[in-house]
Amino acid sequence: MSRSPILLDTKPVSYVIGEGALALSEKRLKKYNRIIILVDENTEKHCLPVFRDHLPEIEIDHVIVVKSGEKQKNLDQAIYIWNKLTDLKIARDALFINLGGGVITDIGGFAASTYKRGISFINYPTTLLGMADAAIGGKTGVDFEGYKNQVGLFAHPLSVVIDPVFLNTLEDIQWQSGFAEVMKYGLIMDRELWYMLAGKNYRAIAEWNNIISRAARDKIDIVQYDALEKGIRKNLNFGHTIGHAIESHYLNYDHPVTHGQAVAAGMICETWLSSKIFEMDCTRSQEIVSMIDLNFGKFDLTEAMIPELTDLMKQDKKVREGKLKFSLIRKLGKATHDVEVDFDLIVDSLKYYINRHAAH
Amino acid sequence: MSRSPILLDTKPVSYVIGEGALALSEKRLKKYNRIIILVDENTEKHCLPVFRDHLPEIEIDHVIVVKSGEKQKNLDQAIYIWNKLTDLKIARDALFINLGGGVITDIGGFAASTYKRGISFINYPTTLLGMADAAIGGKTGVDFEGYKNQVGLFAHPLSVVIDPVFLNTLEDIQWQSGFAEVMKYGLIMDRELWYMLAGKNYRAIAEWNNIISRAARDKIDIVQYDALEKGIRKNLNFGHTIGHAIESHYLNYDHPVTHGQAVAAGMICETWLSSKIFEMDCTRSQEIVSMIDLNFGKFDLTEAMIPELTDLMKQDKKVREGKLKFSLIRKLGKATHDVEVDFDLIVDSLKYYINRHAAH
Repeated sequence: MSRSPILLDTKPVSYVIGEGALALSEKRLKKYNRIIILVDENTEKHCLPVFRDHLPEIEIDHVIVVKSGEKQKNLDQAIYIWNKLTDLKIARDALFINLGGGVITDIGGFAASTYKRGISFINYPTTLLGMADAAIGGKTGVDFEGYKNQVGLFAHPLSVVIDPVFLNTLEDIQWQSGFAEVMKYGLIMDRELWYMLAGKNYRAIAEWNNIISRAARDKIDIVQYDALEKGIRKNLNFGHTIGHAIESHYLNYDHPVTHGQAVAAGMICETWLSSKIFEMDCTRSQEIVSMIDLNFGKFDLTEAMIPELTDLMKQDKKVREGKLKFSLIRKLGKATHDVEVDFDLIVDSLKYYINRHAAH
Repeated sequence: MSRSPILLDTKPVSYVIGEGALALSEKRLKKYNRIIILVDENTEKHCLPVFRDHLPEIEIDHVIVVKSGEKQKNLDQAIYIWNKLTDLKIARDALFINLGGGVITDIGGFAASTYKRGISFINYPTTLLGMADAAIGGKTGVDFEGYKNQVGLFAHPLSVVIDPVFLNTLEDIQWQSGFAEVMKYGLIMDRELWYMLAGKNYRAIAEWNNIISRAARDKIDIVQYDALEKGIRKNLNFGHTIGHAIESHYLNYDHPVTHGQAVAAGMICETWLSSKIFEMDCTRSQEIVSMIDLNFGKFDLTEAMIPELTDLMKQDKKVREGKLKFSLIRKLGKATHDVEVDFDLIVDSLKYYINRHAAH
């Protein structure tokens, strides 16, 4: 009889952030004989030429193109990638590059880290959402049976290269979507960031380089302390418990909604929950809600949707012992996690969202 | 611009080995509100009752049954498990138990560690192969497009509980299959183990408890040093480079062959390669080949199969920079890895196997 606990391997992740990051990554890429790059039809058109321009000496073995959009973040696309890698006889010493937004880094990270038990991959996020959030932290996966990220794993890239050069390729709706996550960092941990944004519409912001660096560093800080989301990392879920349910709901009904739009609505509901539970200053919670409204406007939720939304929440990864735990804000720049909330109060927060808008 | 390397989380694995291990695991299991157990139709019939008998106070939430056999180690079965877990609304705080041989621990470990980015799982191996090898070390995955373990990941169980009580349920062919791996530990790292086995047929061995403990500890030792197979763990691949090609070949043609039979044939070829490259003592290599023959007999390989076998090897995970690297033995109990072997010599080793048997 023996019990011998063992420790597993650890590996560092390198972050390269700022103008010129793309060209700086050349040295690392040159170590690989075979490089595969994953894009969608948009990043193939707008970002791949930029990538090639800045890294003219890097030979790309093969470009894998998947369809864009959250609706495409499914197992079929992962199977498509595994098939391509198999057909190309890609070995474990190859490098896999994700060039795109959150869908590409999620699905590509999942496919790469499960192909032959894992080949190295590097994330080159091309959207605001990717740069400030999705490309960092090792969450990979696909949606499954209508549930967000139901199949996936924590798998860290070798490196995350965040170069704002790609932002020139973004459409308005992608700026808006990423802006929800940027605001979130202000609300949960970074008052200074919040004050840089407060009162502004995302279209009027000029200092993106600073803002992205700041949000990315906030996320890196949290992931560094808690890679596997056992504690403080849960704070990042602010707005996402209700937000994911909204996103899944619309995904199931083929209605287009961005991740940011869903999270923005979720943050309004969860700010209301925060103010109820932690007696947050009323002026402050009004300020937060107004700022979200200023950037996201009205969102089409009805009371008839509530039963399905609560049902979706019961499948949330944050369910523990049958209760739904939220990450809420105690005050501006300070979040707390594992706050148990009754489903009655959750329903009330959705009603607050719906009726507030109805009164407009 | 910043580069901030971070370290990821690590977690210990607990090994419980020997008679009574099953009952001893009760305390750990009691920590979980929901327990799901994966079996195949054989372990459901023969092992699940033993599990329940020894752990009468453990409530099992749901039993998931998949079909037995390597042929079933595919993505469809993983999807079946993900679907079941989703339907049952299993949350991340549940426990997943694998009760079975190598196929169950491979597929169950894969499904559990990718469901909602990973729920905890415990392996209860029920076969000699599982106890001495497959359940230990965190290799999980499924076969894909005819290639062994093409999709999977390194994911360690919370615990591996090895109780010989399950050995009473084994059929002869399963004893034989596991015996190939047990012999392997003798050859690559454990001369004493080899001498415990030498000259015997597996059917004549009585001291299984000692032998299993010894083989399991050998594997744990190696995994402890090199969880991600960057160095010394590669030694465990002795016999498997050619063995996996043989196994894949037969898998593609629907011909039944056990993992052990394929590895045994692979070990004969790779012993021949070892003797060619390292000038191993001729008497010693003869002794090894005879011992394998004594336990596995003649295996049906023909020269016509060689092109397909070498093609399969080109898809091997151990291909680096287009060359195939072998783990070979320098002498009894001492292996070495990353030995580059030309495909011509690989072909010769297969011809040695085929013609040696033809002369019998």
